[in-house]
Amino acid sequence: MSGNSIGKLFTITSFGESHGAAIGCVIDGCPPGMALSETDLQADLERRRPGKSRHTTQRREPDAVRILSGVFEGRTTGTPIGLLIENVDQRSKDYGKIMDRFRPGHADYTYYKKFGLRDYRGGGRSSARETAMRVAAGAIAKKYLAERCGVTIRGYLAQLGPIRAEAFDWAPVAENPFFCPDAGKVAELEAYMDGLRKSGDSVGARVNVVAEGVPPGWGEPIFDRLDADIAHAMMSINAVKGVEIGAGFASIEHKGTEHRDEITPEGFLSNQAGGVLGGISSGQAITVSIALKPTSSLRLPGRSVNLAGAPVEVITEGRHDPCVGIRATPIAEAMLAIVLMDHMLRQRAQNADVRTDLPDIPAHP
Amino acid sequence: MSGNSIGKLFTITSFGESHGAAIGCVIDGCPPGMALSETDLQADLERRRPGKSRHTTQRREPDAVRILSGVFEGRTTGTPIGLLIENVDQRSKDYGKIMDRFRPGHADYTYYKKFGLRDYRGGGRSSARETAMRVAAGAIAKKYLAERCGVTIRGYLAQLGPIRAEAFDWAPVAENPFFCPDAGKVAELEAYMDGLRKSGDSVGARVNVVAEGVPPGWGEPIFDRLDADIAHAMMSINAVKGVEIGAGFASIEHKGTEHRDEITPEGFLSNQAGGVLGGISSGQAITVSIALKPTSSLRLPGRSVNLAGAPVEVITEGRHDPCVGIRATPIAEAMLAIVLMDHMLRQRAQNADVRTDLPDIPAHP
Amino acid sequence: MSGNSIGKLFTITSFGESHGAAIGCVIDGCPPGMALSETDLQADLERRRPGKSRHTTQRREPDAVRILSGVFEGRTTGTPIGLLIENVDQRSKDYGKIMDRFRPGHADYTYYKKFGLRDYRGGGRSSARETAMRVAAGAIAKKYLAERCGVTIRGYLAQLGPIRAEAFDWAPVAENPFFCPDAGKVAELEAYMDGLRKSGDSVGARVNVVAEGVPPGWGEPIFDRLDADIAHAMMSINAVKGVEIGAGFASIEHKGTEHRDEITPEGFLSNQAGGVLGGISSGQAITVSIALKPTSSLRLPGRSVNLAGAPVEVITEGRHDPCVGIRATPIAEAMLAIVLMDHMLRQRAQNADVRTDLPDIPAHP
Amino acid sequence: MSGNSIGKLFTITSFGESHGAAIGCVIDGCPPGMALSETDLQADLERRRPGKSRHTTQRREPDAVRILSGVFEGRTTGTPIGLLIENVDQRSKDYGKIMDRFRPGHADYTYYKKFGLRDYRGGGRSSARETAMRVAAGAIAKKYLAERCGVTIRGYLAQLGPIRAEAFDWAPVAENPFFCPDAGKVAELEAYMDGLRKSGDSVGARVNVVAEGVPPGWGEPIFDRLDADIAHAMMSINAVKGVEIGAGFASIEHKGTEHRDEITPEGFLSNQAGGVLGGISSGQAITVSIALKPTSSLRLPGRSVNLAGAPVEVITEGRHDPCVGIRATPIAEAMLAIVLMDHMLRQRAQNADVRTDLPDIPAHP
Repeated sequence: MSGNSIGKLFTITSFGESHGAAIGCVIDGCPPGMALSETDLQADLERRRPGKSRHTTQRREPDAVRILSGVFEGRTTGTPIGLLIENVDQRSKDYGKIMDRFRPGHADYTYYKKFGLRDYRGGGRSSARETAMRVAAGAIAKKYLAERCGVTIRGYLAQLGPIRAEAFDWAPVAENPFFCPDAGKVAELEAYMDGLRKSGDSVGARVNVVAEGVPPGWGEPIFDRLDADIAHAMMSINAVKGVEIGAGFASIEHKGTEHRDEITPEGFLSNQAGGVLGGISSGQAITVSIALKPTSSLRLPGRSVNLAGAPVEVITEGRHDPCVGIRATPIAEAMLAIVLMDHMLRQRAQNADVRTDLPDIPAHP
Repeated sequence: MSGNSIGKLFTITSFGESHGAAIGCVIDGCPPGMALSETDLQADLERRRPGKSRHTTQRREPDAVRILSGVFEGRTTGTPIGLLIENVDQRSKDYGKIMDRFRPGHADYTYYKKFGLRDYRGGGRSSARETAMRVAAGAIAKKYLAERCGVTIRGYLAQLGPIRAEAFDWAPVAENPFFCPDAGKVAELEAYMDGLRKSGDSVGARVNVVAEGVPPGWGEPIFDRLDADIAHAMMSINAVKGVEIGAGFASIEHKGTEHRDEITPEGFLSNQAGGVLGGISSGQAITVSIALKPTSSLRLPGRSVNLAGAPVEVITEGRHDPCVGIRATPIAEAMLAIVLMDHMLRQRAQNADVRTDLPDIPAHP
Repeated sequence: MSGNSIGKLFTITSFGESHGAAIGCVIDGCPPGMALSETDLQADLERRRPGKSRHTTQRREPDAVRILSGVFEGRTTGTPIGLLIENVDQRSKDYGKIMDRFRPGHADYTYYKKFGLRDYRGGGRSSARETAMRVAAGAIAKKYLAERCGVTIRGYLAQLGPIRAEAFDWAPVAENPFFCPDAGKVAELEAYMDGLRKSGDSVGARVNVVAEGVPPGWGEPIFDRLDADIAHAMMSINAVKGVEIGAGFASIEHKGTEHRDEITPEGFLSNQAGGVLGGISSGQAITVSIALKPTSSLRLPGRSVNLAGAPVEVITEGRHDPCVGIRATPIAEAMLAIVLMDHMLRQRAQNADVRTDLPDIPAHP
Repeated sequence: MSGNSIGKLFTITSFGESHGAAIGCVIDGCPPGMALSETDLQADLERRRPGKSRHTTQRREPDAVRILSGVFEGRTTGTPIGLLIENVDQRSKDYGKIMDRFRPGHADYTYYKKFGLRDYRGGGRSSARETAMRVAAGAIAKKYLAERCGVTIRGYLAQLGPIRAEAFDWAPVAENPFFCPDAGKVAELEAYMDGLRKSGDSVGARVNVVAEGVPPGWGEPIFDRLDADIAHAMMSINAVKGVEIGAGFASIEHKGTEHRDEITPEGFLSNQAGGVLGGISSGQAITVSIALKPTSSLRLPGRSVNLAGAPVEVITEGRHDPCVGIRATPIAEAMLAIVLMDHMLRQRAQNADVRTDLPDIPAHP
């Protein structure tokens, strides 16, 4: 394919521009017989949806998704699931000013050089609007993995600019607009974001995602390793600049004796590996951390050039997220779910009849 | 494919176990007409080869590669290039002791659970031995990219355990066994590695890779982004636990005004993006940084279980790298070359006839 | 992917059931800059559309296609083109009678055994309704190939049941409802079809497709041969049971001296090969012939079993084509166009800079 | 990939030229735990091997295959299986005369125009030599399908030039050099082939392949239909010009009432479909028929042009099959096995947990 598909057996093919007629995707490879309806997708779409708090873009996207195929009498049929969201709130006028110039830090210039023309309306294909389809497709994978495989996938905001979550609890994640697991930091985050918004600037963030309940054996040597496919999926999200599995960059200063996760009959004694050994799941929690850059859509003027190469000043008006990382949590969960779903199917295909006498080694708590 | 291939148009399919009869790969998609011989591959294989200094495993692998097909009268024919390295120094006896147990931090357990059996000789398929084929294939991509596209790909060791390169110069990289760009640190590295080796422990490292001369336009939206494919390729290397593009994790604390790379007619004013915008090359240097974990093959005893689930002590004798990161530089260069070669071909396919009046914006020095 | 995509660089991913909400597809890989609008697609959709003569099903499908993405200001942008046709004339009641039984000669039984459930409305995913999307996608390929590569793709009905076209002329093909190149046979075809319709039975057909103007060099050894990919694409059309390239099955009784297409400086002396040698286009006309089975949807009772395995009688009411081959011509043209478009892009990728002094050998007239 | 791989989950990647150092392939996706050794592959290689009777080329190829990886202690490990056959009997001198000219009916011209150069020794990559690897890989698929799925795959020569097999029995197939199921025709075939060889000419053939024991449910809508993938695999064999499934081209004159395979609780009443409905196996025998053209390598002079476009006479000396179809039977079996193996794995992946109360409908005897 030419770049708009992901997954080998659970394949998502996405289309649509930010301000075109609609965005959509095709999910090919969902097993038959799973109960599925639009409401199953809407929940995660809501978590991603902008405009829910004053800390995200006020662009109003109802994001009402339609299932066009692949579901009959409330169950998946095994045929491709077509999803569609019509674009309703397009406000193209917001973008007229930038049609002749390249916003710094955006894909305007690279799309123009690659394709020779570009849909400048709201960033066209390169807009974060596209991630709505990742979330919708990911919701299907999450549902299947939860119901059939006992896998739970959850994410949270680990850091926003200078502010790190210190305490950790899953409960508050769903209760604040930042997906922050440290309830004590929410006020500080509110204040910081208010100041940031007033300043007109933006900031980066770190999002962590965890998959629990993945059995040993998912992932393929040598190139389609589970961690390699996760890195691919995460880096394919707008604004992501770094990916870590397990100890990640901290491994640089680790000694082998502290990093290798020793094993006892009672279970693994640590999880520096982040649940993946040799590209294959170990049965421990799969832990992923990603870095998101600050958005480059700012009302503070930036230097750039126009189509003629002449210097211009760029001011991005309209509605933008001062921290795109805030809404990235459900997107990162979706991408992890899509990769795990794909590798679960691959494991089934090749190793359906593998049995060993050795029980699974318990994960490190 | 089932995991042992990488690349869509420039496709590497790899096979072979550490202590089997041979390792090899097939390179499908190399354009015809390029001069190629074994000596073109041997240079990078030498850079990766163990046993060149006291700081790497003393396993002796001549790593003499044979080109079996795809080259006629000294030029590539456009048909698949088959490469083969016979395994000569196998010393299986070194590994007899671990046939019934799982080395902690290795793929022994995950391979066993996935496949129900495993080739325990030297780690079998999961051994770093496999990376020799990445280097050989990468050498072909590097040669084509250099000769036909003016792209230069170079890497270096940025950090080894606690020791960071501070000064930077490409010259010393080729002149010390660590690929270190800071000549002033070499003595410190020597001493540190000697101590580490005596202690029986191992340590992690950071390797950086840079591609210069990549024109704007390589990379595909949405999922096959250039940076996403780079992340996939890098994370597929043994022991890699993290990948950064451009500013990477530092982006978390960046403000938008400092991160967005502003543009003037004279060129980009910075390169926080690492040469990729919206998944497409910008014409700036593509900068990648990876974290490698310390090897888990230690002579210091570690706790684990055997095939029966009973507790055992694991001691890895034989010859191992106290820092696998030292030899990772040519491997990382190879993977970057393979990804760039693939995307160069994809750009040619889809956008061969794209022309714009706008000259390329110069890269930030 | 899981079966609903075709093409490596020009990739069509299709979705939708006969009587679901809509059918659609995503075309990923269309080069940018080509003028494109719905009217470009509608022409071929009209040629395929049922209900245009009394000889095809009277099901009324306006088949109004919407372009949802990938086109901006009238030109393709290089991003995926999303196409959608809402299903308007569903008449599910026609099919209520067969929900509990398997129509002989249909996919009812195989879908049920594969997926454990099926959308029985009008055949669901296995309905010929799906071919509308092939035609729409093929129209894009045909337009690009015609405008940029000088390739013309045309098809015709070579045989309908016992009636063979004997005279050949392209002119009448567009002027009769059978796509028959032998104007003298049209009356006979009319009479035959009227009798067939009265009898309640159906009949098979042969459709030929020809691509002219394809330069030498399209197609890849060894498995992705141009003729192999054509065979795949043709056999993927509902009801196709056989595919021939060039002389096809007549080759069985050929002598080598008569079959090999000799060459003179003035050109090839024959075209038994059908324009493909070693899987690569030779510059001669690419000639393909396919056999289509008679539809199994008959009002004449047939024996079958129901979901409980009990014997039942099946009568298919509703509107059906007594000869599905009649409408297959634009579908076969579309599939040939899709394959050629894909291989043109692949040839560009790998061999963009190949030049030879030898001029192309002229095709046999 | 670029054409030298086939299969999505059971993937064969092939390399090697007729007179290069070696030919080989990588089989990626074979499930672990199956007993496998070189002797398992050698049996089918022997059936394909030339020089066994006076009716095939006298080129002596020991075709001794080595398993280089993926097998440990006599069992497959689930990692890629590397196969290698060194080329021993190269006799390049036979081919010196054709290095500057294009043999009519061969791939010489198309390879030259595509790649700008070609390995002219024995046809290089386009030689039938390449099919040895198909047979070796197919033997692995056949073994797995037989042992784990109860699938039997057998082929035979149905027609050689004007001589058709009339009686049918599997027994004689293995007992004559033609794979002919009609013992009474063997003498006629011997005489015909002796005359043909003396004349210096060649002739075409028809080979049929049958797979029995395939359960319902293998194959994917819409494009990766089982029959479409079979057509692709068969048409990818050198010299194949046509493919039929089930009734094939006879379907053109069939009435729906005779073609649709009616069903009773005792089983299907016929098998015009050839075991595939809607692209999915029905549980009936999968029947495939292919047409092979006569070889163009003749000692009888043929007209062609040389690299300068000047007229030349081509005489192919050396050793060639007067009927390549004779040796095609094991190749066609191998390709069918590879496709079925791939779809068996795909069915496992997506529909592992599908159950229906309906027992499989018995096949028509």
